[in-house]
Amino acid sequence: MPTYTVFSTTGTLSSERKAAIARAVTHTHSQVTGANTFFAQVVFQDVQPGDWFLGGARMKGDQIYLCGHARGGRPAEMKNRLVLGMRDVLVEHGGVARHQVWVYLVELPPAHMIEYGYVLPEPGQESDWLANMPQPDRERLEALGA
Amino acid sequence: MPTYTVFSTTGTLSSERKAAIARAVTHTHSQVTGANTFFAQVVFQDVQPGDWFLGGARMKGDQIYLCGHARGGRPAEMKNRLVLGMRDVLVEHGGVARHQVWVYLVELPPAHMIEYGYVLPEPGQESDWLANMPQPDRERLEALGA
Amino acid sequence: MPTYTVFSTTGTLSSERKAAIARAVTHTHSQVTGANTFFAQVVFQDVQPGDWFLGGARMKGDQIYLCGHARGGRPAEMKNRLVLGMRDVLVEHGGVARHQVWVYLVELPPAHMIEYGYVLPEPGQESDWLANMPQPDRERLEALGA
Repeated sequence: MPTYTVFSTTGTLSSERKAAIARAVTHTHSQVTGANTFFAQVVFQDVQPGDWFLGGARMKGDQIYLCGHARGGRPAEMKNRLVLGMRDVLVEHGGVARHQVWVYLVELPPAHMIEYGYVLPEPGQESDWLANMPQPDRERLEALGA
Repeated sequence: MPTYTVFSTTGTLSSERKAAIARAVTHTHSQVTGANTFFAQVVFQDVQPGDWFLGGARMKGDQIYLCGHARGGRPAEMKNRLVLGMRDVLVEHGGVARHQVWVYLVELPPAHMIEYGYVLPEPGQESDWLANMPQPDRERLEALGA
Repeated sequence: MPTYTVFSTTGTLSSERKAAIARAVTHTHSQVTGANTFFAQVVFQDVQPGDWFLGGARMKGDQIYLCGHARGGRPAEMKNRLVLGMRDVLVEHGGVARHQVWVYLVELPPAHMIEYGYVLPEPGQESDWLANMPQPDRERLEALGA
């Protein structure tokens, strides 16, 4: 966990901006929750020009909408820092103003999530989970986080 | 809140139909829930021809799938009217029959949702939320709803 | 129910692989949960090359990410078999290794889901739901499952 899907209008986020957003989203998630960075997946999805509406009217200008799916079971205060942190990442690296940012966070039970082929552990059990993994899989994950 | 993502096969919904659907989805959400229209985001996503399956077989004909993410905490009767209302919108404006419509509604805690850069209020607290916002941000939202 | 959305990089899954995945995802869902196959919708979504990040870095190689939305109210053991079954389907039919598979399962109340124009029944109430449907609609669904 988690998966952060980032929606933006086709052509507005350069390859460099996407890389910077993915790096900062991953870093923020890890820093706020304490989870290893290799748990984070960031996927960008395009919205075609004209396919985005606010208040019932075609959107003028830009917007970035980040929808995260993460393990549940964390304290409210941590989740508050998480969504605000994501907002700030998008403002800093996405080339948009604060009012052009939407962030949603959907929580899932860890038992409903498979990453790298394994069902996820409860928050806080990551070390045991990793230690019990066959060595090649563990090394692959640790290399990702490096 | 909310975000309504509308999936359809590439090329089946004209620009005019999309605008009509977005307007009616937003209107229906506001009318059923009492929330301001500016809370509603509608995003269209294409599915490539051949990439949609029902019952394990490639879909023949058209379908529209609307997946909403909205604040939780509303009574069951209201949510029932909401999903049925969305179905009727898609039949009326989407050019499909009733059996070609799917609607899902995922609920989130308001604290997990940022729109226009601000964490959302609980349902019913919208007026205070808006009143406490800096004036330029409030005016921007009110202009969207107009 | 359910909807399984399958994310892969543009061009990596052939039309044949997609059909095989959709068939096996639907079969697995039906076999594990006991629900009729016509309840299952599988939608493929492309991720553009370079738009997928793991651990904050651009992904090298392939990955398949399946995100399911299904009715809640099933026992944990069944859901465990479900997510592991989906993983195995993607390895068998998707041309990827086990460590290249992610699976998430989001649960929704049946009352929040409309399929083929009808609000879904609770798990186990499918037969009554179907029996109470107008005949043309029922026959359409039964033909899909054939």
